[in-house]
Amino acid sequence: MRKVKVSAFSVSLDGYGAGPHQDNENPLGVRGFELHAWFMKTAAFHKMHHLVEGSEGVDNDFAARSFENVGAWILGRNMFGPIRGPWADDSWKGWWGEEPPYHVPVFVLTHHARPPLAMKGNTTFYFVTEGADAALRLAKEAAGDWDVRIGGGVATVRQYLTAGQIDEVHLAFSPVLLGEGENLFAGLNLPKLGFHPVQTTAGEGATHVILKRD
Amino acid sequence: MRKVKVSAFSVSLDGYGAGPHQDNENPLGVRGFELHAWFMKTAAFHKMHHLVEGSEGVDNDFAARSFENVGAWILGRNMFGPIRGPWADDSWKGWWGEEPPYHVPVFVLTHHARPPLAMKGNTTFYFVTEGADAALRLAKEAAGDWDVRIGGGVATVRQYLTAGQIDEVHLAFSPVLLGEGENLFAGLNLPKLGFHPVQTTAGEGATHVILKRD
Repeated sequence: MRKVKVSAFSVSLDGYGAGPHQDNENPLGVRGFELHAWFMKTAAFHKMHHLVEGSEGVDNDFAARSFENVGAWILGRNMFGPIRGPWADDSWKGWWGEEPPYHVPVFVLTHHARPPLAMKGNTTFYFVTEGADAALRLAKEAAGDWDVRIGGGVATVRQYLTAGQIDEVHLAFSPVLLGEGENLFAGLNLPKLGFHPVQTTAGEGATHVILKRD
Repeated sequence: MRKVKVSAFSVSLDGYGAGPHQDNENPLGVRGFELHAWFMKTAAFHKMHHLVEGSEGVDNDFAARSFENVGAWILGRNMFGPIRGPWADDSWKGWWGEEPPYHVPVFVLTHHARPPLAMKGNTTFYFVTEGADAALRLAKEAAGDWDVRIGGGVATVRQYLTAGQIDEVHLAFSPVLLGEGENLFAGLNLPKLGFHPVQTTAGEGATHVILKRD
């Protein structure tokens, strides 16, 4: 069964999925990296970036699982890069260096067309200008029997949640207060959209909650 | 050292401290009781209401601790009762029956004067019409060397947080999504107010987070 899912999505205790003032220096906004401390400690993350060591345990299990069975990703434009408006050229290739951690097709929502970008390790970025529904259709086609993962950012996740197109959400609540930034929950009635928590698991650096839709 | 504190304050994953449509049938708003399921299972709660049994464990430790060292409480009017506007008479004596679980002076914020109300078990409700600062001053006097506990509801906690008058907050995140109601965090920048999380502990039915002020 193919799912459309959000996984390992870090939020603060006060509901922020990113800090304010996102730019080249702060890809996740000011203090945004603190949300992901649990993830960046894991063996799964270290392996992904060809680093040695990294922690085993509950957080690592959730981190590793978040990459299993994913056949395609969808990213918002801001998650792909800090550039706004038209692409000046094709030099920006994402935040992740020559070999991004996706290894499958990644569909990037943008208003500005750009040719597909093939990277090392089997990741290809496709730039979709026809909107969120079109991106989801393309991602499902590309994923085949595997899952489609909505990577983020907050606005993109909220858009697909509101449209009723997401089946499962794994949130990682980090022990952090941000106070400002992009709030995942503001004005979003998740129970009305059919979501309820089915599992809460304490990790070493975050509390993992699984939401499913009726 | 005397503290002003919020303890065992239940919130949903999406930040709501009470559901919508509070009334006589729903003292905590629609679905609000679900936030407190962790608490109502504890031995501390059962003992408080002269019931038998109740669970031991992490949740119970936090529940029991929330009543320790408390010399006075402050409650918002809505936490005391569902009545709005002037008191028709003195027949409403709170949600808690003849012997409320406070056993110390309780200061109720209201715009409508009413004589103090002495209950069984040493709880006296004082109705304060001079505002939040006056209530805090009275509560500190009454508490002496003990702590003042801000009981709620959400609006009252937010008011004292914003005023920088709270030293410590214990939140219990329940595995519940409410989607609507009274949000604790909306528009409140807790880091700017000096708060940061110092402890996260997984309980059986809630995740307990302690926030302290610099």
